[in-house]
Amino acid sequence: MEDVSPQLFIDTVMGYQKTAAIKAAVALDLFTAIAKEDGDVARIAKRVQAAERGVSKLCDYLTVQGFLQKDAQRYRLTPSTATFLTASSPACMSSIVDFLAAPEMFSQWLDDPVAFVRNGGSPGLATIEPDNPIWVKFARAMVPFVAPTAQGLAQQVGQWPTPPRRVLDIAAGHGVFGIEIAKAVPGAEVVAVDWRAVLEVAKENAAAAGVSPRYRTLAGSAFDVDWGTGFDLVLLTNFLHHFDTATCVKLLAKVRGSLAPGGRALAVEFVPNDDRVSPPFAAAFALVMLAGTPHGDAYTEREYAQMGRDAGFAKVSATPLPPSPQSLVVFE
Amino acid sequence: MEDVSPQLFIDTVMGYQKTAAIKAAVALDLFTAIAKEDGDVARIAKRVQAAERGVSKLCDYLTVQGFLQKDAQRYRLTPSTATFLTASSPACMSSIVDFLAAPEMFSQWLDDPVAFVRNGGSPGLATIEPDNPIWVKFARAMVPFVAPTAQGLAQQVGQWPTPPRRVLDIAAGHGVFGIEIAKAVPGAEVVAVDWRAVLEVAKENAAAAGVSPRYRTLAGSAFDVDWGTGFDLVLLTNFLHHFDTATCVKLLAKVRGSLAPGGRALAVEFVPNDDRVSPPFAAAFALVMLAGTPHGDAYTEREYAQMGRDAGFAKVSATPLPPSPQSLVVFE
Repeated sequence: MEDVSPQLFIDTVMGYQKTAAIKAAVALDLFTAIAKEDGDVARIAKRVQAAERGVSKLCDYLTVQGFLQKDAQRYRLTPSTATFLTASSPACMSSIVDFLAAPEMFSQWLDDPVAFVRNGGSPGLATIEPDNPIWVKFARAMVPFVAPTAQGLAQQVGQWPTPPRRVLDIAAGHGVFGIEIAKAVPGAEVVAVDWRAVLEVAKENAAAAGVSPRYRTLAGSAFDVDWGTGFDLVLLTNFLHHFDTATCVKLLAKVRGSLAPGGRALAVEFVPNDDRVSPPFAAAFALVMLAGTPHGDAYTEREYAQMGRDAGFAKVSATPLPPSPQSLVVFE
Repeated sequence: MEDVSPQLFIDTVMGYQKTAAIKAAVALDLFTAIAKEDGDVARIAKRVQAAERGVSKLCDYLTVQGFLQKDAQRYRLTPSTATFLTASSPACMSSIVDFLAAPEMFSQWLDDPVAFVRNGGSPGLATIEPDNPIWVKFARAMVPFVAPTAQGLAQQVGQWPTPPRRVLDIAAGHGVFGIEIAKAVPGAEVVAVDWRAVLEVAKENAAAAGVSPRYRTLAGSAFDVDWGTGFDLVLLTNFLHHFDTATCVKLLAKVRGSLAPGGRALAVEFVPNDDRVSPPFAAAFALVMLAGTPHGDAYTEREYAQMGRDAGFAKVSATPLPPSPQSLVVFE
């Protein structure tokens, strides 16, 4: 039998304190300092230009939370912390706090959490408002979160019997998915669609990856922009979940109409099981959409299959993309 | 070897979402509705006057977080949820969100978490500012959190060979510690000290407990109020942690000077081990004090013993008060 305890409740109520602590640690680049200063608090404090007292309390807290180990008054990074939270690590993911723990997000969730539950979605357009500046933050912050997934996907696409020549990247954001495909498929041309300010970030990333000559942008709403036809591959990464089923079907039909013969659309999505409570991250994402959009959701494979059929696709399948919590949904 | 994963980091960054979800659930009295409506979403939604879509997403999320179980599209309370989060349960603790997840707390932690780390404490007086209204919220909200501890402590005190006749309850808040002693020790008289607005709550609770004739209040700062002498017992519950060591010693000396012969002071506190990273809740509390006070801390038994000696006490000991995460510190 379960041990009856209020611990989970109290821990959950105080969840925002964890957010604050990790946000402070990232802002101070604390984990890099711990590595460089051999876990010595006085030296760490000097490096991050903070009070020793503040640093030691924060390090103790982060030890309790599992980010650090402490022995003989020195702090050590766990392997996960070293991998994902030190500046010199290629997998460093620190920047995601700039989006996931942005003040806009705190406001969206904490100002009136009853409102989005009562209303069955965000009271206003929230994140799907045209030109919402949160997407610039997203584009700048979330690259390390998606990069491994994008690289894995590009590798798969590069091994197709006929790799795609013309690629449309809808709601490209940082552009990383399209850019990785441009890198993996020599000669492939990418058209990226997003809000104008967001595309500036994608263009920077395309330039840094050396694919600018094969990278074109189209500013505007995915529902309004005329992107033409003849695409071998259309990318819909982290986009469909923002909308209701009818809107997704409408967009998928538009996508289907723009495909070249034999072309296909790939969505990268949080896809829960039919029970909607597993796997945990994908299932929990449904509440992210409830808080942040009027009608968005984490759709199941069955639901995506129905949307695909309603949009005229012959075949839809979803497969997990480990180690990410996301799945690849293929419409063909 | 640890599985290297960004999961802990991502989960921690998104901690505020858990706070929002549980806050919404409590505000809607969702768990009571789940129990009363046999876990059926349509009926639950009707009872809590919220969209079915919002309720089902919230219930799924709370299932992922471990508050509920879901089978055949019905939600069930776990034993802990039934015990601590339904209105009819005598142990219901829902109200603690009104303090622990108050907007003031979100602001304190999330507006600028770097500031309190860099500064080694809150930039201003924060929670220790005179007459800070957060303490009225505390007094109203936190009774269920402390009641079992207060009852256990009163039972101990009631069994002393010579139970206390005159009790001073410093920073009484809700007053529950003093009130439980008044209930357990017939004839004991309690003097409660706190800010004036907070004492109104304590007086209400004393009246509800039927001990008003033996309950007196003294409004003002514990450092300034002249509460007289001759107390057999002085209570310092959740108070010393707000101050630096020198201030605690000053207060303890004042307390010692007000004790009758053989009298003692009892502090209820979060007391971490010397490593300051265990046990988890008491250790994590140090960051609560860093964020919420200029110089407060979760002190170790060793530190309380030193403070006690410096204030003239002969003996200081700390013992855990399970199942609460707190300890009893006895100064005699």
